[in-house]
Amino acid sequence: MAEHVVRLGPLVYEISRLREPVLTIDPGDSVLVETEDAFSGQVRVPGDVRDRTALPLSDPVAGPIVVNGAEPGDALSVHVVDIEPLLGQCATYVLPAPHVVATLASPMPDMTRICQIDDGQIRWSEDVTIPYRPMIGLIACAPAMGAPTTVDAGDFGGNMDLREVAPGATVMLPVFVPGGYLYLGDCHAAQGAGEVSGIALEMPARSRIVVGLGKGIHMGWPRIETDTELLAVACGRPLDEAVGKAFSRLAMWLERSYGWRRWEALSLLSQVGETSVGYYWGGGVAAKIPKSYVERT
Amino acid sequence: MAEHVVRLGPLVYEISRLREPVLTIDPGDSVLVETEDAFSGQVRVPGDVRDRTALPLSDPVAGPIVVNGAEPGDALSVHVVDIEPLLGQCATYVLPAPHVVATLASPMPDMTRICQIDDGQIRWSEDVTIPYRPMIGLIACAPAMGAPTTVDAGDFGGNMDLREVAPGATVMLPVFVPGGYLYLGDCHAAQGAGEVSGIALEMPARSRIVVGLGKGIHMGWPRIETDTELLAVACGRPLDEAVGKAFSRLAMWLERSYGWRRWEALSLLSQVGETSVGYYWGGGVAAKIPKSYVERT
Amino acid sequence: MAEHVVRLGPLVYEISRLREPVLTIDPGDSVLVETEDAFSGQVRVPGDVRDRTALPLSDPVAGPIVVNGAEPGDALSVHVVDIEPLLGQCATYVLPAPHVVATLASPMPDMTRICQIDDGQIRWSEDVTIPYRPMIGLIACAPAMGAPTTVDAGDFGGNMDLREVAPGATVMLPVFVPGGYLYLGDCHAAQGAGEVSGIALEMPARSRIVVGLGKGIHMGWPRIETDTELLAVACGRPLDEAVGKAFSRLAMWLERSYGWRRWEALSLLSQVGETSVGYYWGGGVAAKIPKSYVERT
Amino acid sequence: MAEHVVRLGPLVYEISRLREPVLTIDPGDSVLVETEDAFSGQVRVPGDVRDRTALPLSDPVAGPIVVNGAEPGDALSVHVVDIEPLLGQCATYVLPAPHVVATLASPMPDMTRICQIDDGQIRWSEDVTIPYRPMIGLIACAPAMGAPTTVDAGDFGGNMDLREVAPGATVMLPVFVPGGYLYLGDCHAAQGAGEVSGIALEMPARSRIVVGLGKGIHMGWPRIETDTELLAVACGRPLDEAVGKAFSRLAMWLERSYGWRRWEALSLLSQVGETSVGYYWGGGVAAKIPKSYVERT
Repeated sequence: MAEHVVRLGPLVYEISRLREPVLTIDPGDSVLVETEDAFSGQVRVPGDVRDRTALPLSDPVAGPIVVNGAEPGDALSVHVVDIEPLLGQCATYVLPAPHVVATLASPMPDMTRICQIDDGQIRWSEDVTIPYRPMIGLIACAPAMGAPTTVDAGDFGGNMDLREVAPGATVMLPVFVPGGYLYLGDCHAAQGAGEVSGIALEMPARSRIVVGLGKGIHMGWPRIETDTELLAVACGRPLDEAVGKAFSRLAMWLERSYGWRRWEALSLLSQVGETSVGYYWGGGVAAKIPKSYVERT
Repeated sequence: MAEHVVRLGPLVYEISRLREPVLTIDPGDSVLVETEDAFSGQVRVPGDVRDRTALPLSDPVAGPIVVNGAEPGDALSVHVVDIEPLLGQCATYVLPAPHVVATLASPMPDMTRICQIDDGQIRWSEDVTIPYRPMIGLIACAPAMGAPTTVDAGDFGGNMDLREVAPGATVMLPVFVPGGYLYLGDCHAAQGAGEVSGIALEMPARSRIVVGLGKGIHMGWPRIETDTELLAVACGRPLDEAVGKAFSRLAMWLERSYGWRRWEALSLLSQVGETSVGYYWGGGVAAKIPKSYVERT
Repeated sequence: MAEHVVRLGPLVYEISRLREPVLTIDPGDSVLVETEDAFSGQVRVPGDVRDRTALPLSDPVAGPIVVNGAEPGDALSVHVVDIEPLLGQCATYVLPAPHVVATLASPMPDMTRICQIDDGQIRWSEDVTIPYRPMIGLIACAPAMGAPTTVDAGDFGGNMDLREVAPGATVMLPVFVPGGYLYLGDCHAAQGAGEVSGIALEMPARSRIVVGLGKGIHMGWPRIETDTELLAVACGRPLDEAVGKAFSRLAMWLERSYGWRRWEALSLLSQVGETSVGYYWGGGVAAKIPKSYVERT
Repeated sequence: MAEHVVRLGPLVYEISRLREPVLTIDPGDSVLVETEDAFSGQVRVPGDVRDRTALPLSDPVAGPIVVNGAEPGDALSVHVVDIEPLLGQCATYVLPAPHVVATLASPMPDMTRICQIDDGQIRWSEDVTIPYRPMIGLIACAPAMGAPTTVDAGDFGGNMDLREVAPGATVMLPVFVPGGYLYLGDCHAAQGAGEVSGIALEMPARSRIVVGLGKGIHMGWPRIETDTELLAVACGRPLDEAVGKAFSRLAMWLERSYGWRRWEALSLLSQVGETSVGYYWGGGVAAKIPKSYVERT
């Protein structure tokens, strides 16, 4: 299989089937993808702040990458091999939803922070280090009509902010247009469940992925598979509907591919299922089940 | 400290300050509490089904237990020592929210199941065993006005369905009326995150608790503490508001009791926080942080 | 038919089947009911403010009124004859949901206002008069289990804040316990759709009602009928689910009582239906249809 | 001022700044715009049904129309002069949200209906005629980044389904890109509040509009003005947040343009405001106030 590189290039803020591809590959190829951080590089050195007036757009991505042979109804599988910091650092500030601002009441100071990444640890403050747990916040194939911005999430994937899109995992995304038109970006050095402040430890990154093609999969929403778990994804508000939809999707996947009947699967999920909340205010949530429950004797 | 027993008695379906106490204790006492399952015992042997026409009420509880000295503004701490099956079995069926029923589309068969519990394992089916992970689904102090039913959850606690209310953990509940008026029930042999089918592995149980009293705590919502984590709870729909509220509460707790400033705490939670979804459609959700992050040098 | 009077009495803040009735009547009787305003009388003269620390409870009501012969499965019909100001004035201030506070951003001054009512007009300010359009904000029959507070709304009715509960209209409420246990209060001199500030023009009032009894109606949610419209009610958050539920209920009512098939009715409602938003953040919403469409040739 | 015509052309399903304009006009010009119905013409004669497999896209629009001089920060004003049926008929069927399907439970028959429009009346059935009250369901200026599909609604306008976008009214839309890039379509012969079945009386139409340009308005969301009312619009789920946002926007507009202070305006809106629900499940909702209250002495 061929190996490709996508260097940091002009920043892209929409997931569109109409953009000129930056790369065309064959299924099975690997790609090293450089991506800028969610702040478009505005926060690099102490003293920098995110200036949304100068640049209202967030979450620039790399892409589109075209995959030969990908047709509507197929699925792209993106295996994440590793994710490295591009500049050895990450950054964050705080931009919570209005209801959180209102609840905390007290005036919000500037919370901008630039953190060095060394030896598997993120130096968050003098006192606090956080383990480096990189992930890809945004991954998507372009829809057949319309072009979501890079802050959106939906059945096309997009800005899901799911921590399981990480080294060792494989994301499957529905293909909507010939070639797939894969985008990715918004990498995080680490992130908590829910991403409550609206922002993670945003990081310019170099991600190595291997892209496969599943023909005729016809599953119209994102899935993730790790060594130990199957995950079905749903996005958007309100979160409770997304959770119910994610579990329903997981039940239908277990029926389709693992010999379960859907209601039986749902019953089991109600006892052993887990959830993974990406961005709690409109991003992705995944319903998960350990693979050990899935394979039937 | 004294040890008490609350035997299975008349079934109670509301969390009321007006009920006659079943027990009065001193802070530090332990209580062995027997509780019926969420089905009020309707599903005991194969062939039984939940009959909501005959009995529309669910989640009977034991209580109220009065704690001497408890005053409004205090908090009861309920340390869960252990939870044992009362009858060596648990039961479940499927009662999902309408949007899940609509998504799965296919007619829903009877999914009633009675499962034996042996040696730390629940025999869910011929093929599938699930580890016994008992929890208390409902725990609450009566509010100062009104009386929620036992299917409700709110700042008084109630039907939160949080898995961390389990052996080894301590739940703290705000006291609203003198004596506290503690109720508990709706025990589960196991449960998945989200409890998507609306029902867990419901179990008549014998729970051993130790009840303490924190004077003048003045924190108007439930908290949980385990050996390794702090959890702040919020309940109700929509779930995304509850998640944001739970994290906000956790940030304010870290400020109040651990020397953090709230916005700094929120920023950290956005990177290392975790969520625990109880019942995703109106029950409880907890925001969690490992204690290792909380103690400041 | 007998005429009764319920004078202003001890303030009640919960809708409970367990309270001592203040009055027992026969179906067809009329009752003149005096009610305090939502502020429990705290805002009477200029300079007064609502003090929620001194009194956290809101929306005191009169009741319960027991209706002889009312049994579970019946419906009480409450025809509103008229609503008069008890003190010739009303009052308001501003208590919006957090998301509104966050959106308007600017510091919120004290917006307390006491307005005289004269000659069918409310003197809101020097410049602005508002027509006197009185309504009953809270009307309910006690549920069979639990006791909602007077800020809650649900299938029992409660704090719906629907403007159509006004002179000339008839509200129908499901009976859950023998005797019905009717409560009412929270009268408004006027109110806008949505009640966006959380508060209307709250008014101590004297309401004249005629109470009827419909045997075996078995419709588990509130309805309203005026000279020209039929209204079906649903309550709670999120509002979009309540709207869909209200229209579904209206379609089922048209099927049951007017010879329509439900899907046909829903299709018509999508073209000629109207909505009435009570309190937009968890209160009631009604789906409405002009009676002229309903009677079939 | 010049008069233009946009004839029915290739169907467009996204609101994009990148499409080739179909027309360029000067501010003050009038345009006669022909639009196909939401079904893309699939439902024309009895026996036709909407076939979403053959055509998954809905709500084709006309456009983009470029307005000379329109710059980001400006607003386009679109005065609707009249809306006529293009083919003398309209059509509908039923596609409700899952929660409504689940609530009505009973199997849903084919509800496709084609209705003739004569003399100001829509012949909905043998028994039922509905007054012809035409409206434009979708009107939008293209956003600066991304391209919403024609089923979406947001601060750019889009598929709001607000009945006040009707003859005699003026809609104001924020301009995001030079030229504005105006789109419109999805006309209805009539529609109920909430549009609960998901579909109105969809109609191919000829709309006459006069397009104006407000320089430097800088108001980032849609507004509507009629002879008697001012309306501020918010879109999306959940509906309660959209209602609160719409009223907040109206309060800020009253502050900015009519001499009110925002909190004072919000207080008044809570007493005299009205709501107009477009599509209740993610479309637009408007907060309204009679102009008679707005002009201050």
